[in-house]
Amino acid sequence: MGAIDTVLGLIDEHFDRSIEKLFELARIPSVSSDPALAGECRRAALWLSDYVSSLGFQSRLMETGGHPVVYAILGDLNDTTKPHVLFYGHYDVQPVDPIEKWTNPPFEPKIDVAKDGTERLLGRGMSDDKGQIFTFLEACRGWIEHTGTLPVNVTIFLEGEEEAGSPSLERTLIEQAGDLAADVVLACDSAMWDRDTPAIATRLKGLFHDKVIVHGPNRDLHSGTYGGVAANPLRVLSNILAGLYDADNRVAIPGFYDEVEQVPASLRQQWRELGSAADAALGDVGLSMPVLETGYTAMEQTWARPVVDINGVGGGNQGPPRSVLPSQAWARLSFRLVASQKPDVIRRLFREHVASQVPSDCRVSFEGDDGCGAYALKEDNPFLIAAARGLEAEWGRQPKFPGSGGSIPAIGWFKDHLGLDSIMVGFALDDDAIHAPNEKYDVRSMRKGTRSWARILEEVSRVDLKWRRTER
Amino acid sequence: MGAIDTVLGLIDEHFDRSIEKLFELARIPSVSSDPALAGECRRAALWLSDYVSSLGFQSRLMETGGHPVVYAILGDLNDTTKPHVLFYGHYDVQPVDPIEKWTNPPFEPKIDVAKDGTERLLGRGMSDDKGQIFTFLEACRGWIEHTGTLPVNVTIFLEGEEEAGSPSLERTLIEQAGDLAADVVLACDSAMWDRDTPAIATRLKGLFHDKVIVHGPNRDLHSGTYGGVAANPLRVLSNILAGLYDADNRVAIPGFYDEVEQVPASLRQQWRELGSAADAALGDVGLSMPVLETGYTAMEQTWARPVVDINGVGGGNQGPPRSVLPSQAWARLSFRLVASQKPDVIRRLFREHVASQVPSDCRVSFEGDDGCGAYALKEDNPFLIAAARGLEAEWGRQPKFPGSGGSIPAIGWFKDHLGLDSIMVGFALDDDAIHAPNEKYDVRSMRKGTRSWARILEEVSRVDLKWRRTER
Repeated sequence: MGAIDTVLGLIDEHFDRSIEKLFELARIPSVSSDPALAGECRRAALWLSDYVSSLGFQSRLMETGGHPVVYAILGDLNDTTKPHVLFYGHYDVQPVDPIEKWTNPPFEPKIDVAKDGTERLLGRGMSDDKGQIFTFLEACRGWIEHTGTLPVNVTIFLEGEEEAGSPSLERTLIEQAGDLAADVVLACDSAMWDRDTPAIATRLKGLFHDKVIVHGPNRDLHSGTYGGVAANPLRVLSNILAGLYDADNRVAIPGFYDEVEQVPASLRQQWRELGSAADAALGDVGLSMPVLETGYTAMEQTWARPVVDINGVGGGNQGPPRSVLPSQAWARLSFRLVASQKPDVIRRLFREHVASQVPSDCRVSFEGDDGCGAYALKEDNPFLIAAARGLEAEWGRQPKFPGSGGSIPAIGWFKDHLGLDSIMVGFALDDDAIHAPNEKYDVRSMRKGTRSWARILEEVSRVDLKWRRTER
Repeated sequence: MGAIDTVLGLIDEHFDRSIEKLFELARIPSVSSDPALAGECRRAALWLSDYVSSLGFQSRLMETGGHPVVYAILGDLNDTTKPHVLFYGHYDVQPVDPIEKWTNPPFEPKIDVAKDGTERLLGRGMSDDKGQIFTFLEACRGWIEHTGTLPVNVTIFLEGEEEAGSPSLERTLIEQAGDLAADVVLACDSAMWDRDTPAIATRLKGLFHDKVIVHGPNRDLHSGTYGGVAANPLRVLSNILAGLYDADNRVAIPGFYDEVEQVPASLRQQWRELGSAADAALGDVGLSMPVLETGYTAMEQTWARPVVDINGVGGGNQGPPRSVLPSQAWARLSFRLVASQKPDVIRRLFREHVASQVPSDCRVSFEGDDGCGAYALKEDNPFLIAAARGLEAEWGRQPKFPGSGGSIPAIGWFKDHLGLDSIMVGFALDDDAIHAPNEKYDVRSMRKGTRSWARILEEVSRVDLKWRRTER
């Protein structure tokens, strides 16, 4: 029996305690986008710092100007014969509204058994990303309990602003680069291919948000006095939003697709063989008819085509009927980019397009975040191959290498500023309801995820470091 | 010196006390559409009942199932040689949001002097409709102080649900018709033609509200996972709203104009001679370019053409940036009708039109109120002529007989259920900011409005009651 079997045995044996500790963290409402909860974010960071310290890491908070990073190391970082991994996850969570749709309070985590017998961990952050962080931490604990150390050198780097667009992260990576040397990033913030098939995401979309505000009359008007005569910002906004797409569901912003590379025919073929998980996912949420760009499958659309989505709108009467013609209306949008599309360029094209559509009588203003570009990993990366081997041992199946429609700004910045590729392993499932009420994480995701990381750490320890010397 | 001069003298002499009493009423936040303020609505009704009782009326609350009506009478109702007027106004007010835009707390009324020296009464309800009610009550007080009674028999009828669409009023008028016999309604809930020219509104638009709710996925989705693939209710809603109008700013609902009568050429000519007050009003609110149906002036659009306005929209992310694709989106609309357009018919046409535009994958639901039809008064009505004479005496100018873009459901129902025409006199100004922050009522509107009613009551007392016997 090899060391790994003992480690896996310890993980299983102490699994209840793993859940207990996860629940302690999950009770802290670390909603990063809510300024009122900044103290809770710091509390979550301190809790994690204490916890990894109790496992044997040297731990501290790394200040960022925003919510702190939990930074911890274990291993002899001068021993360059051992691979050195930097583990990335985030301890902050999404807001909980609409709160009334939660069947269990979001920050009172509990184990629940679904109708089909599936055991789930209920609570905000279970899947995104506190539970996923824990799969790695508990794998480390298994190794440390058995061997007193880890098979590789490990830097833990847990950010607290991922759900708020990681506003402080890029600067932190640049300023703290000296403390962040490693060979590769292991990240846990992604999903399984399906319930039984693991996945390593090899593409991420770029992302930025923009808010459009249409300004009309200088005050709210009575629709009886001014209706049908005064420009209505809600109508102007509706026209702008409706005009963002053409009849082929293509984004109608001039120049939007200029930098988009066509997906190679071979890759499209490979993806088509992966089946139609996206269609199935649609069924899970009560829909049946994907809204696709003409000529693309749901998978291609999600992984390789840029999309613009309206995330929220508001303006005017928000209560009972009231005959008001408001002075302002707004919409928030997310832009998911691919390949060489640059957030700054697309933002400029979008704003110019909108401005050209606003009647001379109205005015438009914008508020946006910086956003991040897209990311792609080569399929012959030795750490990718090692991680795949670990996943296959745990799940009995080769992992898929999907793209992703999601965006993790950190991943692009690790590449840009630290020169590090990221191996994105995760155990979330499509029905985990991340970013929505009733978020959950299957107990099986937690258990087998932890076991997976234990195996991956061992496989990564075997990566030939000649790779590092030749590549860097 | 006639009685009227003494009455006008008493009104001026006691004007400060009139403001004091108005402010007492204005401090009660009787927002009828907010269920949490139902108690305040009743408090306002009781205050008014007590106040008119102190003037000499026999007063009580008339229960309606909703907010009560203040009901009061003065005079010998069996004396059919005297005309009998029913005075209509409303003591409820609009909500105050956005509260942050008020420079003075909405329910802490005060007198303020504008930069140009105009004295104004600041506070919610000052113009719509508590201040306007007071012009009538204080005119009665003047007459009563001088003569111990009024020149005509008066029933006061002050409703508490006008700003909420008068949900209980129609039933109340039907059930209480026996107590509401009169010769004519005098209403005070409308505006001056301009600062120096009085007006009697002779047309009201019909009005109903409808809310469209687009239902898409069965829960909020992550726009990274589902963006560009799942139907987005916000996009479906934007398409619906943008498609409500055609390039000529005509409402694009099939059948919408079927029952609309063309305005007679002679009336259009008369209106064009009234000038372009609507364009000036647009300037007051920071706009310059009316959004009109091709072929109509702003005045025609407001008074004689039906319009549909978007009053509010919502859905999805309402806070900081968040990559959500929401399960629902909604819009609230107001429909302003003319002539023979029936609310029920137009509502059905609208809903059918919307339903036909919803993708098969989404669902749409509606919530609406009953609404009311349009109203028009003949220009040879003897009470109209009497009121016009009173206004001319006070203002030194003949009143204009404009249409109105607004709607007062009560007016149509007085006609339908009590057989009464309404003489709509009011002293509001276009810049009073009714239904908006910083509502005000000019001190001059209050003072000369009160004096106007004193004169109108006398003129009405001279109406030849043969009219009543032949007409009814």
